[in-house]
Amino acid sequence: MGPHPAVAAIRLAVRRALSDILTGLPSPRSSAAPEAPGAPEAHRAPDAPDTQAPLVLVACSGGADSMALASALAFEAPRRGVRAGGVTVDHGLQAGSDRRAAEVVERLTAMGLAPVESVRVAIGRAGGPEAAARDARYAALDEAAERLGAAAVLLGHTRDDQAETVLLGLARGSGTRSLSGMAAASGRGGRYRRPFLEVDRQVARKACMVQSLPVWDDPHNTDPAYTRSRVRHEALPILEKALGKGVVEALARTAQLSRDDADALDAWAAGVERTVRDEAGRLEVAKLSPLPAAVRRRILRSSLLAAGAPAGSLFARHIEEVDKLITGWHGQGAINLPGRVEARRQDGRLVIQQRAAPLG
Amino acid sequence: MGPHPAVAAIRLAVRRALSDILTGLPSPRSSAAPEAPGAPEAHRAPDAPDTQAPLVLVACSGGADSMALASALAFEAPRRGVRAGGVTVDHGLQAGSDRRAAEVVERLTAMGLAPVESVRVAIGRAGGPEAAARDARYAALDEAAERLGAAAVLLGHTRDDQAETVLLGLARGSGTRSLSGMAAASGRGGRYRRPFLEVDRQVARKACMVQSLPVWDDPHNTDPAYTRSRVRHEALPILEKALGKGVVEALARTAQLSRDDADALDAWAAGVERTVRDEAGRLEVAKLSPLPAAVRRRILRSSLLAAGAPAGSLFARHIEEVDKLITGWHGQGAINLPGRVEARRQDGRLVIQQRAAPLG
Repeated sequence: MGPHPAVAAIRLAVRRALSDILTGLPSPRSSAAPEAPGAPEAHRAPDAPDTQAPLVLVACSGGADSMALASALAFEAPRRGVRAGGVTVDHGLQAGSDRRAAEVVERLTAMGLAPVESVRVAIGRAGGPEAAARDARYAALDEAAERLGAAAVLLGHTRDDQAETVLLGLARGSGTRSLSGMAAASGRGGRYRRPFLEVDRQVARKACMVQSLPVWDDPHNTDPAYTRSRVRHEALPILEKALGKGVVEALARTAQLSRDDADALDAWAAGVERTVRDEAGRLEVAKLSPLPAAVRRRILRSSLLAAGAPAGSLFARHIEEVDKLITGWHGQGAINLPGRVEARRQDGRLVIQQRAAPLG
Repeated sequence: MGPHPAVAAIRLAVRRALSDILTGLPSPRSSAAPEAPGAPEAHRAPDAPDTQAPLVLVACSGGADSMALASALAFEAPRRGVRAGGVTVDHGLQAGSDRRAAEVVERLTAMGLAPVESVRVAIGRAGGPEAAARDARYAALDEAAERLGAAAVLLGHTRDDQAETVLLGLARGSGTRSLSGMAAASGRGGRYRRPFLEVDRQVARKACMVQSLPVWDDPHNTDPAYTRSRVRHEALPILEKALGKGVVEALARTAQLSRDDADALDAWAAGVERTVRDEAGRLEVAKLSPLPAAVRRRILRSSLLAAGAPAGSLFARHIEEVDKLITGWHGQGAINLPGRVEARRQDGRLVIQQRAAPLG
């Protein structure tokens, strides 16, 4: 009998996400046979690590998603010539978080992962509690990946997480890019991989259950003080009720389609940007004007960012106001934008620059 | 004292939406002074219609949105050299709908609109009850607009309707175009105008109240059997609770940004399509392959539609499967698509054609 369908699904997802790293051959020191239907799986001893093989880390909180991910990586890695390791981040936000981190280390080690580390992080305040925790987490994972020379770091985000991310992006109302959710591969050289973006949370949980893996339910995930938790437990169930089953799938597909659209338009805008400037590098109104609004506004946005406007404070309404200097010109004055950037129209050019910081 | 802010808002919205039709001058036979702050408004007699002036119709259900729209048009039209008329559609779906239609005609006539008509429609079944009613409604409005020689037909869709439409599009999961909601101008020559797409439903209702206009609340709007009603009364309030105030605005902005993005990408795909075909008109894999996925898939979609695949049955997953003939080629066979269309790869070309209808 082959593995349970949920277990087969998570392993397939890991193989696909690592197809460029997995050699397809068992590690030279491995005695494990390639996976085959009907092959016995239990009681295989973890293989001794081949220190020449590429290292893949799994970021594991101890929750069902990342425990399932760790188990799939632990199964695939020795059969395909890579080493599997793990990192758990101790955010230090809850009492006993250090004990829990130690438990996760123990469980990952028991799965045969090596090296396995717990990393304690200090969380700042920038951007609110969720953003600050995320920034600290990625900084710690970056550091661990560099230090251990990891070829990839796997993250357990599921299709449900992706759907939630799209809804959160929708609430910003800033367009196609903000609807594109999380990338299957991101970070330096595509280091971060999200094998489960097309796997349902329920499948990950089931895979843990049938493999008898203990999982930890983060109380933050059900705490209505967190926006994501409200989206998960209130908004999505009601959306499903109103719009029918398949909303999570539709949102995840929206992410992929939006990402492709945003990539294509960003490439168009980047390609055209050089051609719409005069010798002094200023944007020429006559050349911007005939461009599609979607392309023109992307050029304006990147020009404002280049002048020093902070991405997080630059909204669609700002871009639209600057665009009116081109499409709705009636002699309006300079437009003040975040980051002390100002945009004005002068002699058929857009002058975009940062004002000097106030003295004192 | 000028008009109530809600009344000022709906009038401004109508002026903007009709800026290409309104002459800005009072109708030659009009005695009304141009609107000015402080000018008395009450008791102005409706002007006698100038039959040379362009005619603008308002589609009015008797609900708050379209009654507010009718009142704004009735105010603006005689002051700006256009005639204002009205049409109400009797769907015949509820007992007493004919009496209600007669009441709407009476109210519009009392506002000074002329001509005003009630049109009874027969509703088919295609696409479900909401789609069938919509199709019948637009067919009736098209007919009335043609017969009366209307330059424009105003529709009362508000920003809230737009937000609901975006959520409904999101549930389809078919990408940027399906998130672009309703256009400010659509139909033949941009005949249908939606002046209230940036006006909140609450403002329209308020404008009716302060003008003492009786409004009719369609029981369908609160009937949970209708998807849109569930979105309005269940999904949106919960989304606001989870994501914060401003969700409606964010969704409406998403519609505009998505529309601009979809327009730009459609134009790109249309422009490039001629360059990726061989002399026989078949799509060449080598020329499609380097295009951004967003552009390539649009070309594939339009090729499948041109071959006879019905738009309503052609989903993102179909396009993706055809795209795999280019990006994931491993010798797969012909792909069967809706409308008896098939796509296969042959000698570096995509052959997309409709199979003959089965005999008998």
